[in-house]
Amino acid sequence: MLLLGSLGFIGQNLIEELKNDYNLIVFGRQPGQYSPDYTYYSGDFTKPETVEIIFKNHTIDLVIHAISTTIPSSSDWALDIDSNLKNTIHLLELLKQYKVQKILFLSSGGTVYGLIDGPGCVAEDHPTYPISAHGINKLAIEKYIYLYQQLYHIQYLILRLSNLFGEKHSSNTHGLINVALKKIIKKEPMTVWGDGEIIRDYIYIKDCVKIIHQLINKNVSNQIINVGSNQGHSINEILTIIRNQIGDFKIVNTAARNFDVQRIVLDTSKLKSFINIQLTPIAEGIQSTYRWLEQTYE
Amino acid sequence: MLLLGSLGFIGQNLIEELKNDYNLIVFGRQPGQYSPDYTYYSGDFTKPETVEIIFKNHTIDLVIHAISTTIPSSSDWALDIDSNLKNTIHLLELLKQYKVQKILFLSSGGTVYGLIDGPGCVAEDHPTYPISAHGINKLAIEKYIYLYQQLYHIQYLILRLSNLFGEKHSSNTHGLINVALKKIIKKEPMTVWGDGEIIRDYIYIKDCVKIIHQLINKNVSNQIINVGSNQGHSINEILTIIRNQIGDFKIVNTAARNFDVQRIVLDTSKLKSFINIQLTPIAEGIQSTYRWLEQTYE
Repeated sequence: MLLLGSLGFIGQNLIEELKNDYNLIVFGRQPGQYSPDYTYYSGDFTKPETVEIIFKNHTIDLVIHAISTTIPSSSDWALDIDSNLKNTIHLLELLKQYKVQKILFLSSGGTVYGLIDGPGCVAEDHPTYPISAHGINKLAIEKYIYLYQQLYHIQYLILRLSNLFGEKHSSNTHGLINVALKKIIKKEPMTVWGDGEIIRDYIYIKDCVKIIHQLINKNVSNQIINVGSNQGHSINEILTIIRNQIGDFKIVNTAARNFDVQRIVLDTSKLKSFINIQLTPIAEGIQSTYRWLEQTYE
Repeated sequence: MLLLGSLGFIGQNLIEELKNDYNLIVFGRQPGQYSPDYTYYSGDFTKPETVEIIFKNHTIDLVIHAISTTIPSSSDWALDIDSNLKNTIHLLELLKQYKVQKILFLSSGGTVYGLIDGPGCVAEDHPTYPISAHGINKLAIEKYIYLYQQLYHIQYLILRLSNLFGEKHSSNTHGLINVALKKIIKKEPMTVWGDGEIIRDYIYIKDCVKIIHQLINKNVSNQIINVGSNQGHSINEILTIIRNQIGDFKIVNTAARNFDVQRIVLDTSKLKSFINIQLTPIAEGIQSTYRWLEQTYE
């Protein structure tokens, strides 16, 4: 099993979750990583030959594609296309060439659907009209993966993840819960875009990687599946939970961002039809995340 | 009104249809074109500065984007992305910068939907899972156009065209009806992919450009609309019509292509909700096309 994107937030948690059950090969940008838990290759996703060497050296049954070179607020759209979309097509060509059976792609439940009417949860067959270039790119990658399944019978599992939080998230700028907790530790004010009434579906990273583990174990294939909590929380609600759990902090309100959808909560009925999921209560996930951040940043 | 793609099949027919009603500026690759009907700019769509000069010199209310640098059977997918998708994003940036009100984009009803279950017609809200890179690119362009409407209020009209045939179509390799008619004139055998039972929705180019003209006149905006005949014909049926109308010819059968969907017929209810359409009977359209081809190629 090959994991692309080993040094990111999801990658690191996936390694923890999968290392005992699978023969893991991981690919990341940083050179000289070593672990008894996996075989490490350092390379550059934008240089396909640095990925190809892995397929030359190993027989890979599953590639987990967890590389995302940009974030939802990215404004260089040509970069998004070159670094994410085109390089994923190069990857798919390698899968075809080296007869890899399956790809698991981590897509974005928060951005591919775009604007949602009404208060309901969004199922996988909802129309997809992203209001960010990031979302369009994730969607286009989904379409190419489907194309390779149709033309070359490479199986896929596309997971549309909701907003993740938890241990090993190191960004200072995105991921509401992690950013807020870090601000508390650093005793800095927290910036909130808009009125704080934007609603998102937050899932704790350890639940997310357990779900991915189960879906791999069951060999669920050729499906697009939402992975989220099925629960909506506004920014203000999250900040209240954090206040109650951890302590008080200052807020600076700033203008809303035009690429944020007002409300997105994923319908996870399809996910539940494949596996049993038990989610960590959000307050508990926030506590664990805070303890990790304290150890790491204090 | 600016037409991008003036020298193509659709572009040339659009000029004929629109030249009397609008102040036309047209952009094409070939240098030194002159016509009393329009102002001509020669340039290269892959070099945005050659397009930008038009916006510097003229106030444009509507851009008709009829440039497609690849065809459905194109196999260089990176080229598709660079030349079509990325350059369309550059175009959208120009529209934003020069405050152009609206873009009309010619998308592909034959490829964006992908595989269709059952014998029905496909409406605009049908899921879109293309089985060709060409279709994915058209779809991704649609998504970026929608994004620019959401973020920057540039209006759009996206038309998903079915299979076009008719005068001024010069390709020797794609477009079943035109290719077949040309083979008759050249007394060459006609190649048919697969068993000839693939079903398509054929629309006569003169009907198509009249429809576009009407939609522009009515200022239909921020809509994705199928433009087709609402009628399905198999390749074998088309060849029979041609035999009956024009004369006999030889057929060479060859293997089916994996990027062809089995059946695609567009539901045009939405189109009919905006305008009245009267379509030329297909046999009549074929006759007119044949007469034009005879004059041009004999």
